[in-house]
Amino acid sequence: MKLIAQYLPILDWGRGYSRSALSNDLVAAVIVTIMLIPQSLAYALLAGLPPEAGIYASIFPILLYAIFGTSRALAVGPVAVVSLMTAAAVGQVAEQGSMGYALAALTLAMLSGALLLVMGLLRLGFVANFLSHPVIAGFITASGVLIAASQLKHILGVEIEGHTLIEIGGSLLSRLPEAHLETVAIGIAAMAFLFWVRKGLKPLLVRLGTPRVLAEILTKAGPVGAVVATTLLVWALGLEERRVAIVGSVPQSLPPLTTPSFSPDLIGALLLPAMLISLIGFVESISVAQTLAAKKRERIDPDQELIGLGAANLGAAFTGGYPVTGGFARSVVNFDAGAETPAAGAFTAVGLAIAAVALTPLVFFLPKATLAATIIVAVLSLVDFSILTRTWTYSKADFSAVSVTILLTLGGGVEAGVSAGVILSLLLHLYKTSRPHVAEVGLVPGTQHFRNIQRHEVETRPGLLSLRVDESLYFVNARFLEEFILDRLARDDGLRHVVLMCSAVNEIDYSALETLEAINARLKEQGVGLHLSEVKGPVMDRLKATHFLDDLNGRVFLSQFDAWSALRREGSRPDQQPPSTHDPT
Amino acid sequence: MKLIAQYLPILDWGRGYSRSALSNDLVAAVIVTIMLIPQSLAYALLAGLPPEAGIYASIFPILLYAIFGTSRALAVGPVAVVSLMTAAAVGQVAEQGSMGYALAALTLAMLSGALLLVMGLLRLGFVANFLSHPVIAGFITASGVLIAASQLKHILGVEIEGHTLIEIGGSLLSRLPEAHLETVAIGIAAMAFLFWVRKGLKPLLVRLGTPRVLAEILTKAGPVGAVVATTLLVWALGLEERRVAIVGSVPQSLPPLTTPSFSPDLIGALLLPAMLISLIGFVESISVAQTLAAKKRERIDPDQELIGLGAANLGAAFTGGYPVTGGFARSVVNFDAGAETPAAGAFTAVGLAIAAVALTPLVFFLPKATLAATIIVAVLSLVDFSILTRTWTYSKADFSAVSVTILLTLGGGVEAGVSAGVILSLLLHLYKTSRPHVAEVGLVPGTQHFRNIQRHEVETRPGLLSLRVDESLYFVNARFLEEFILDRLARDDGLRHVVLMCSAVNEIDYSALETLEAINARLKEQGVGLHLSEVKGPVMDRLKATHFLDDLNGRVFLSQFDAWSALRREGSRPDQQPPSTHDPT
Repeated sequence: MKLIAQYLPILDWGRGYSRSALSNDLVAAVIVTIMLIPQSLAYALLAGLPPEAGIYASIFPILLYAIFGTSRALAVGPVAVVSLMTAAAVGQVAEQGSMGYALAALTLAMLSGALLLVMGLLRLGFVANFLSHPVIAGFITASGVLIAASQLKHILGVEIEGHTLIEIGGSLLSRLPEAHLETVAIGIAAMAFLFWVRKGLKPLLVRLGTPRVLAEILTKAGPVGAVVATTLLVWALGLEERRVAIVGSVPQSLPPLTTPSFSPDLIGALLLPAMLISLIGFVESISVAQTLAAKKRERIDPDQELIGLGAANLGAAFTGGYPVTGGFARSVVNFDAGAETPAAGAFTAVGLAIAAVALTPLVFFLPKATLAATIIVAVLSLVDFSILTRTWTYSKADFSAVSVTILLTLGGGVEAGVSAGVILSLLLHLYKTSRPHVAEVGLVPGTQHFRNIQRHEVETRPGLLSLRVDESLYFVNARFLEEFILDRLARDDGLRHVVLMCSAVNEIDYSALETLEAINARLKEQGVGLHLSEVKGPVMDRLKATHFLDDLNGRVFLSQFDAWSALRREGSRPDQQPPSTHDPT
Repeated sequence: MKLIAQYLPILDWGRGYSRSALSNDLVAAVIVTIMLIPQSLAYALLAGLPPEAGIYASIFPILLYAIFGTSRALAVGPVAVVSLMTAAAVGQVAEQGSMGYALAALTLAMLSGALLLVMGLLRLGFVANFLSHPVIAGFITASGVLIAASQLKHILGVEIEGHTLIEIGGSLLSRLPEAHLETVAIGIAAMAFLFWVRKGLKPLLVRLGTPRVLAEILTKAGPVGAVVATTLLVWALGLEERRVAIVGSVPQSLPPLTTPSFSPDLIGALLLPAMLISLIGFVESISVAQTLAAKKRERIDPDQELIGLGAANLGAAFTGGYPVTGGFARSVVNFDAGAETPAAGAFTAVGLAIAAVALTPLVFFLPKATLAATIIVAVLSLVDFSILTRTWTYSKADFSAVSVTILLTLGGGVEAGVSAGVILSLLLHLYKTSRPHVAEVGLVPGTQHFRNIQRHEVETRPGLLSLRVDESLYFVNARFLEEFILDRLARDDGLRHVVLMCSAVNEIDYSALETLEAINARLKEQGVGLHLSEVKGPVMDRLKATHFLDDLNGRVFLSQFDAWSALRREGSRPDQQPPSTHDPT
């Protein structure tokens, strides 16, 4: 029973569900539903899928997340970046508009869901940490630019191809003369209106005395206004006959039961994209969930979130959707509108189901240019290149990771960009730890504290070399330490004792243990003692399980000051000292 | 001129070349040449190539390494593990015995040479460190088993297929009834003789009064004895007519000028194997070179070694060879025989060239079973499963890396094994650093030293929480620290000051900086001070370039003891203290 409860957070909040929570959740659901209708249609367009796929992807996934997820405000469904990644992945295996394309999107959702679910059951939530903040920021910014560029075709009313900025830009330029005047007029008007709503409407409403929360929500409903106005315009003027592209007929139906493909070839081709989509989707979702939870002092369980998102994606795969995740914009609206529990999400799903059955005829005349305009205005708010200047001043490693991510995302597509960002930031970290900072330290006069002799006025003693290794010792840097000490030994004839101050050594792995044994043997040959100080408890526990301490040509000291005091009898040979090891644990 | 000298170590040792060095090098060259003839033929067999390819791969590569390499004793040529990896890689793109097979082997050598050369010019010698010692040990052991298993077909005189232990074993079992009696007799006799030479000959010779070095060398020449004896046997009894497989006619020629393929398809297919072969070959070679150099207090330059090995492999690609590297057995023989400079290698090349022109008719009747026996006896000395027990007692992470490497090498082949080993050890390291050890510390009475309150008898003060974070702060673990501190804060109402003792923090990357800013903001909201102590110089330099120290709701102390002393006025609110930052640099 406890185990079931662990995997079903709904049992936790569902039991204490109150009447006031119900009314708050209902209000939030109505607001979110109104906002989601145009957004779902728009993101389906971005993913290259028929508009109803966006609606379907917002119904069962929300319900499943409400059962399995831990965030009380997260709204799950199609989001911009994942829609773009879906278009890139599915575009590689099928022609847009074909049956195979929709099938591949379902399969991608299934794979992504299965991966998330397995990661959740294996408690691998920590993998989200493998994306550094600058890499995420750079990726989101570059994706925003790519998405906006890819939507310009709908504003111009032309056909373009490509998944990189260069391809899209080249295609756009060559097709510019074919731009369709009426479409351009609608698209630009919609964009101008939406930008004004975003910047100017809220201050105006507040000045007119509208309560702040209501003003906020009305602002978010801007896209609905644009949708209604341009749909009426097309209908009234018969613009669809003048080649303004419209959404057209959308089936009036609840989400259909669909079956993704289990073809090994297709699964093989989509596996890597599915992994990247899962990773990016999870990172986006968990960031939003944690931000909102912190505001109410609630906790998010990353492993359970994986399960929630996995269930949501599996739901999408079997009900005509495509990969989904927790979206920033919709979650914030949900939160601001007062949602208290995941039940708000369930009510939203009901609202969208009603819309799918009853309202789809109303969007027949909706111009695609309006949907593109809502996407462009939404994603441009994600674009923030300041991460480049901020990392430049702080750390060149972070800067190079973020610039490579941005350049490769723009120039090579979303998958190349995010893969390169993850790999590069990990490699840079490993490279940094492969050449650790090793400081020769001396005593700060009048204290028991030791600092770098090159940065501080400190006391040293001839014949005694104290080295502080500023890194855990493991296979990547083990050889570096060996070379450092042997080089130092070759240059200093009077050396009698080497003390390794291990205050920054958090781990000594097996490779490093072998290296320490080699260093010890070499120093012993030359009659030089090797001592350790400030060895941490967990590291010491492990060393005690080996012969290293028995063979050590020296002692282990609790503190560097103890080592300094004990080894002051300059010239005493280490092998003449008592072999007893001072036990610091 | 200096730049040229940097890339041509030959100018360094060549200038002072003496008559005594010449005679020592000549003696070593004769001994190594005699040993290399059967070995080269055998490894070519292992790689699936005609026997002369092994001889050719030992001529120009040695000469080129003598010009560009830095080790004075390293002998470059075909080695067991790289020959096996070549067979695995080339076997995937061409049929053994076909023209395409030899061409693919040349192409693999070219790619491997180019990769090594580029890595050397980019000074990427440190990548060798990305293979941990246990992973290397496990890989070598599993490869030895695989190689021995793959050679059993020559001992049994049957045809078998496969690159994994399961495939080879299954194939062997099904073909066992077809085993060829005369071949089995030769193979087992040769193996028995070689094992006896290895274990029994040297003690016998030493007892008979042979000088130890000579005894050592005669022992290494054992394979030559087996080759001569079994060749004579086949010739005398006409066993080749009774279907004993023999080497047959080998062209009597100097290495031919060959051209590898530049086909993008072939290069694409061989690129990953070439990377793995380069990495493994480099690691094997540098380990041997450093071991031998240390005995004579010489230094090896890893980056220049990459260039030397790159040149050697390019030489192999254009002279009928296949991928080569510095071999353990041949280098040790060279060293023990008294080689003083790389000129010994050049003389060996001359010796092998003479052999290629003059001696190849003599190996016509050499049975393949004898070559297989020399390989099996040689590689079984590499097999050492004790790495499993040694890592088990020391570190489960190292143990899991080595066991996965062994299992995957045996069950999935060399490429899968070594890739998995590298990736797994890096991921395990990252996983460990993603959940750093955070210790709450207190003052060891009577000292200025702070240790973990759970392991030592220490003093603490109410309201003051001192945390020592035992890891660099970077994107992989940034979130962990935030959750740790906020959890702790939620459980302790009386908290007034949090001191982060940064003695083990070697880096704070941009992600961690953002996290520290978030922690600072949260603590500030609750009226709790955030202080840092023992921040290292390089870390402090970087923090000073940001606003973090200005916004910090507390101070930076040189030592934890300073923080302890200054914050003793319990209950004082951090915002009432002077905002000045104590500058520790």
